[in-house]
Parts: sequence; structure tokens; C-alpha cells
Amino acid sequence: MNRPLEIAMLGLGTVGSGVAEVLEEHAELLEERAGGPLRLRRVAVRDPSRVRATTVDPELLHDNATHVATDPDVDILVEVMGGIEPARTLLLHALRRGVHVVTANKALLARHGAELREAAVEGNAGLHFEAAVAGGIPIVKALAESLAGNRVQQLFGIVNGTTNYILTRMTQDGLPFDAALKEAQDLGYAEADPAADIEGEDAASKLAILAGLAFGAEFEAGDVYRAGIGHLTPKDVAAAAELGHVIKLLAIAKETDGEVELRVHPTMIPADHPLASVHGAYNAVFVHGDAVGDLMFYGRGAGRMPTASAVVADIVDAAQDLRRGVPGRIPLPTRSLPVRMISEITSRYYFALEVVDEPGVLGAIATVLGRHEVSVASMIQKGRRDDPVELLFVTHEAVEHQLLAALEEIAGLPQVVRVAQVIRVEGAEDA
Amino acid sequence: MNRPLEIAMLGLGTVGSGVAEVLEEHAELLEERAGGPLRLRRVAVRDPSRVRATTVDPELLHDNATHVATDPDVDILVEVMGGIEPARTLLLHALRRGVHVVTANKALLARHGAELREAAVEGNAGLHFEAAVAGGIPIVKALAESLAGNRVQQLFGIVNGTTNYILTRMTQDGLPFDAALKEAQDLGYAEADPAADIEGEDAASKLAILAGLAFGAEFEAGDVYRAGIGHLTPKDVAAAAELGHVIKLLAIAKETDGEVELRVHPTMIPADHPLASVHGAYNAVFVHGDAVGDLMFYGRGAGRMPTASAVVADIVDAAQDLRRGVPGRIPLPTRSLPVRMISEITSRYYFALEVVDEPGVLGAIATVLGRHEVSVASMIQKGRRDDPVELLFVTHEAVEHQLLAALEEIAGLPQVVRVAQVIRVEGAEDA
Repeated sequence: MNRPLEIAMLGLGTVGSGVAEVLEEHAELLEERAGGPLRLRRVAVRDPSRVRATTVDPELLHDNATHVATDPDVDILVEVMGGIEPARTLLLHALRRGVHVVTANKALLARHGAELREAAVEGNAGLHFEAAVAGGIPIVKALAESLAGNRVQQLFGIVNGTTNYILTRMTQDGLPFDAALKEAQDLGYAEADPAADIEGEDAASKLAILAGLAFGAEFEAGDVYRAGIGHLTPKDVAAAAELGHVIKLLAIAKETDGEVELRVHPTMIPADHPLASVHGAYNAVFVHGDAVGDLMFYGRGAGRMPTASAVVADIVDAAQDLRRGVPGRIPLPTRSLPVRMISEITSRYYFALEVVDEPGVLGAIATVLGRHEVSVASMIQKGRRDDPVELLFVTHEAVEHQLLAALEEIAGLPQVVRVAQVIRVEGAEDA
Repeated sequence: MNRPLEIAMLGLGTVGSGVAEVLEEHAELLEERAGGPLRLRRVAVRDPSRVRATTVDPELLHDNATHVATDPDVDILVEVMGGIEPARTLLLHALRRGVHVVTANKALLARHGAELREAAVEGNAGLHFEAAVAGGIPIVKALAESLAGNRVQQLFGIVNGTTNYILTRMTQDGLPFDAALKEAQDLGYAEADPAADIEGEDAASKLAILAGLAFGAEFEAGDVYRAGIGHLTPKDVAAAAELGHVIKLLAIAKETDGEVELRVHPTMIPADHPLASVHGAYNAVFVHGDAVGDLMFYGRGAGRMPTASAVVADIVDAAQDLRRGVPGRIPLPTRSLPVRMISEITSRYYFALEVVDEPGVLGAIATVLGRHEVSVASMIQKGRRDDPVELLFVTHEAVEHQLLAALEEIAGLPQVVRVAQVIRVEGAEDA
């Protein structure tokens, strides 16, 4: 097949205009790599008269997304409009008709992945979504193809650039959360309504997708436990540093004993862990496979051109399948894997207590911890003869509900003013 | 096609026994991923009676590699025997007959890649070599597929674990080169004859392969400029630290002005560069693409199971092509790109001079540098009133032959005892 492959695109925002630019600028290179020409046939936009800052021929713009998506001559449909509807309906329809789909829509995949895969199987069409997770980092292909010889056991990632930027500023420059958020908004790293980022929703969607690929199972964003970064203070960041750690918003997936943990929350990791030096808007995903050991993938997790890079790689993959006349690639789950409740996970923990500095307080606390099978790895007292003083603890591995029960009891001790903070700790073997 | 795919393997050393183990342990998983069963049909070994430490059925072992490789029922030939012959002849023959080949043989690819690709095209057979570079790190697939929408502009890598282990020990613990090498040999990280690692040959083979993929051109190991690490001293490592840098053996490929630089040499990089924290036997490759920006891939660059992981991923890729009845994938060069002579490159440089500490010496040196258009970014004097003292320079970007001409002239100045060291500097923008 040597005719040009016809591409329709839904959306011409930041990513869409980047995709159009790469298709145009690298037309010759892409023709070589895709085995023949790629042609941008039509682009759906809300209001063609308002499109700016793009090199796309205005003739290609169309305000009717359904019209663009159902065009019978389209070979590859690229969805970069975002949102659930009408993207969901249009992609389902296209896949069933055998149109290969490339999408950057993590929310859609994390909520309706199963349905999309079924439609793809029905239509023998490829479903490609490298751009949906971690922008330009080729982690989807790595999990779906390069780790074929592995059982993935764990996956940790920094997959949200907004929160990583905020935490980097809090860590490196001591900014309070609100100031760091404001700055991220001013720089365009954070949305005016930053909730989806700050509260870990965005990372949870990405984790559901990554864990599905890593473990060959089916997860939705709702399966992921979430805690955001809004409650972190410069004091927490300083305490982490004192303990040789940094705080990152990690997306964590682990398979143990036939269950999977899926969680997004602020996490202390050792300062010499490779993820600790992933700063600013960068993303990174750390994967442990039983054969390959530790791998890390690092790069820009968002932005116009990095995301466009991932979309275009998927277009080329789809084009090669089309030219070779073979069914598209659809990573299918092969098993079901129950998700462990957060209260049942085992982790190491950091917690900070404000206590009255008097003899016996540590003994009382240690007794409660021991009764709940929580063993202390290290403890630091901050300040002395202040009233109250602060005690910082790091535990060995403990079961979450036991740790929480212990802390509830500790909060009731007469010498204890309050439990100031609890943060899970990852990234080093339990000693 | 649902019959088992028949795999023949040449070699059952460290990597081969790892491959056999993964094929056996993950048989079920691989059947799912490859779309049907994979069967290890026969394994060529030098002396079947001497095979130990493997789970392979002794019935499968055969001492005639030609016999194993030319078996007409073989679908996929895995070559993990190493060396040029008979691997070259056997793979050429297999590819021409349409047998998909998976090889971990970097030396063979870096010397006879063109010939192998031609044979693969002739036979419509896949040629897969993820395991030939950086062990378990999926950098070959990333360059060949994930960066399809990019022009790669630069690629820097730590692709030799032996030298990285030695340099890590010299940097972190102040060991001299010989002691660090001895330790690496005792730990099995370095061969009894370490020349291929220490002198950069191994890294040069890998760079030729990576650069070929990155730039879509054809390179051989002999195209790569090489300098080893044997001349580095603890003093050099300490000087680098004083300047906020570390020394790594980097494999560097850059395309500028229609030419490519290909070089492997000790390199100073800033201590906060992501590659600086790649320690011990780990490898990492840093890639800059015009759309995606900076990407880094990190993991175990060698060893039994990481390399087996890459081989098995390639087997699954080949199996999927076989099952779908499509020609194998062969990354083909699409252009020729001249290699720049090392004397013509532009770089920043570190150099150390031993000089007699008397007025006017710096002026004399600076005058010579200026005449050769070498501009100094920073200078530190080490010691004072010692006889001689040491001057450490870092330059802005300069042309290599001009820098060398300047140093030759400087070496002849009456106050200069000797030019003690010259090391190229990478990884930060020229200020």
C-alpha cells in the first residue's frame, strides 16, 4: 500500500498544534519511517475562525467533530481534544469500523479503557496511547513490548509535572505550598483550578494505565488510592531532608501475594534514589522487573512538543501496521488482579509528633507502637525544652491499619499534643 | 498460525542460560504475549558434556553450531555465542533463508551491520538486537520506534559498566585506577584482559549501533574516536570534583552541520547532570530529540538476566511478526552522514598545567590561548609556593585542533613544567 495514509485529528490545542507541526516539519523523515506518506486530512476544532498559532491549512479545519471522525476515508484518527464526551463515542465508533486510533486522553483511558479495547478488538484496529502517560517518555511501549520477558513487580513514578514542580520549589527553596502553587500557575505549569493535579487525580489516571500494562490486568482510576500534596508544609520538607530523604508525589503499583497496591500519595524517598533528582516539570518512571531488575525512564512528562513526539510515534506505529496489512496492536489484559485496600498495605512510615518534653514520653509512645507491631527504625527529637518539642519517627515495615491504630492511641496519650504528619516511605530496602 | 514457534540458540553462556531460564519460567506469560507457544528446539554449545548451571534439557544440546543454525524447522535464531565467526556466517545464512534473528553481539553488528541488514532484507527476516546495547535498557526500540517523530540531535551514554564501576570507585572512594580495576576483576565486572572495556572498544561498538539508529545512517565501530580511562588519576577525579564535575566514560554522538561526531572518551560532566548519578555497573543513555527534548534511559547494562530480558523481548517481537505473517523489522539507514575528524570538533575542555609559580606565567599562558581562539571560562590555582604549582582550566567552546596547538605551545613556555591532563567537558550549555 503506497497511497498516503489519511489522518484525521480531533482537537488543535497545545498538543494538537504540536502534532500538526511535527507532521509538517518532518514529513520526509516520517514518510521513510512510516513506509509511505502521511497526510493530515482534516482537523476538528470548536471554532475554526478562532484558531491561531498553528501552521495548519485553514481549509482543513472543521467544526463538526463527528463529521471529521466518521469520514470513511480516514485511516488513523488522532484524538487530542480531551474530556470524556464526545471523545469516547467518537473513538468507539471509529475503532469498531477498523480505524486505528491514537489518543493522548488519559482520563478517558483510565475510565473507559475496557470498552475502548473491546471496540478495537471488534474492528481489528490499533489503539495507541503512548502520549496519555508521561508525555514524551516512551513508557507505554516499554511496558507493553520491551518488558515482555519480565514479570513486573513494582513500578514507581513521578507522573505529574505540576506537583513535582511545586515540591521541587518547596524542597530547594523552602517555599510554602501556596506560594509554590501560585508560581506554578503563573508559569503555566498549573491550571487555574489545580485540583486534579494537586489531589493526585491526574497521577491516578496515569497509574491505572501503567499498572494495567505492567501487570496485564484491568484497572480504573477509581481503583487507585489517592492523597494530595496540599497538606505538606516547609517543615515536612525540612524534616525529610534531615532524615536524608525528599518528598515526591509518587504513583506506586506493586504486586505482592496475588494482589496489587495502587496508590498516589506524597512519599519520602532517599535523597540518593534516582527519582529524588527528578526536578521541576520532569517526569520519571522507575520499574522493577524480575529479569531486568531496576529500570528508569526520564524525560518531559507534558508540554506541546514532548507530547506531540509520543503521538507521532504512535501514528508511525499505526501506519506501519496499516501498510503491512496486519491488525492493530491492542495491549489486552490477561487476568484479573484484586486491588489491596490501603489499610492492608505494608509500608515504612514517617510520622511527626508534637509532645511535651518530659521523662517517660518516649517510653509511652514506644509501648503503644510495640503493641501494634510497629517497629521504629530511627527517631530524632527536634528542639528541647521548647514546649512542645517535636519527635520525628521512621518505622520499619508495618501494616497500615496497625500504624494508624497506634497513632490514634498515641494521640490520646496525655503528653502528646498532636500527630503532626504521617508520610509513607519508599525506595530503600527495609533494614 | 498457532503451532509453537521453534527457537534455536547459539551459545549457552551467561546470557544464553538466562534466556533459557526466562523462556522456561515465563512460558505461560510469553505464550500470551507472543500469541502462541515458544519452544526452545536446540542449543549449540562447544562441549555438551561440560554444560553446567542451566536448566536446559541436555537432549537439546548440540555441539555443531552450523547444524543447529541451519535446521530447516527453526523460526527464530538467537545468537548469544559472541565473536565474529562463525556467528557472522551463520546469521547471514539464516537471514537469507528468512529466519528471524535475535542477537546480542555488538561487535558483530558494529563491524558487519550493513551485511546483516542486507541479508535480512533479502530474506524478509527480522533482525533484532536490543540486547547488543546497554543490556536490559530498551534503548534500541526507543530510538528505532519511540522517537519516530524526532530528529535526534545528540546522544550521550554511559554504556560500559566495567569502566563506570571503576570510575565510581575512584570518585566515591578515592581509589587509584589499578586498585579499582583489580577490584572490578575480583567482582567479575571486568575481564582478565580488560583492554576492550578500559580502552573504550566495547563502548565504541555500542555507540556505532546507537548512532546508526539515532541518525538513520550507517556507522562502524572504526568510525568512533576512542580514548580510554587508564591514564586517569585520583588527582584528576579530585580536580573534577573541585570544579563541580565528575568524570565518566561517555559515548557521545552529535549531529551538527551535516556531520556527525562519534567519540568515546573520559568526559567531565556537571555533578548535577542526570548521568552523573549513574553509579557502579549501571548504564544510562541520554538522548536529545528536537520534539521530545531530553530523555534518559537507565538500568543494568549487562549481566545474565538483564541481557536475557532484552533478548526475550526481541524473541516476542519476532514471534508476533511471524504469527501475523509479516516481514521482520529491520531498521535501515536512509542516508549517509560523514563523520567529523576529532581534531575538527568543538567542545569545552578541562586541562591541568604544572607551572613554576612566578609572576607573568598566567599572562603568558593566556596570551597563547587567546592567539588560538581558546577562551577561558574558569581557572583555579592549586597550592602556592610549591614548586611547581598546578593550574586547572576550563575553557569555553573551542575547536579541538586549536586547543591542542595552544597546549603544545604552552608546553614549550619556560615557566611550564608540563601539561598534566586534558579532558573534554560536556553536559552544560556553554556560558
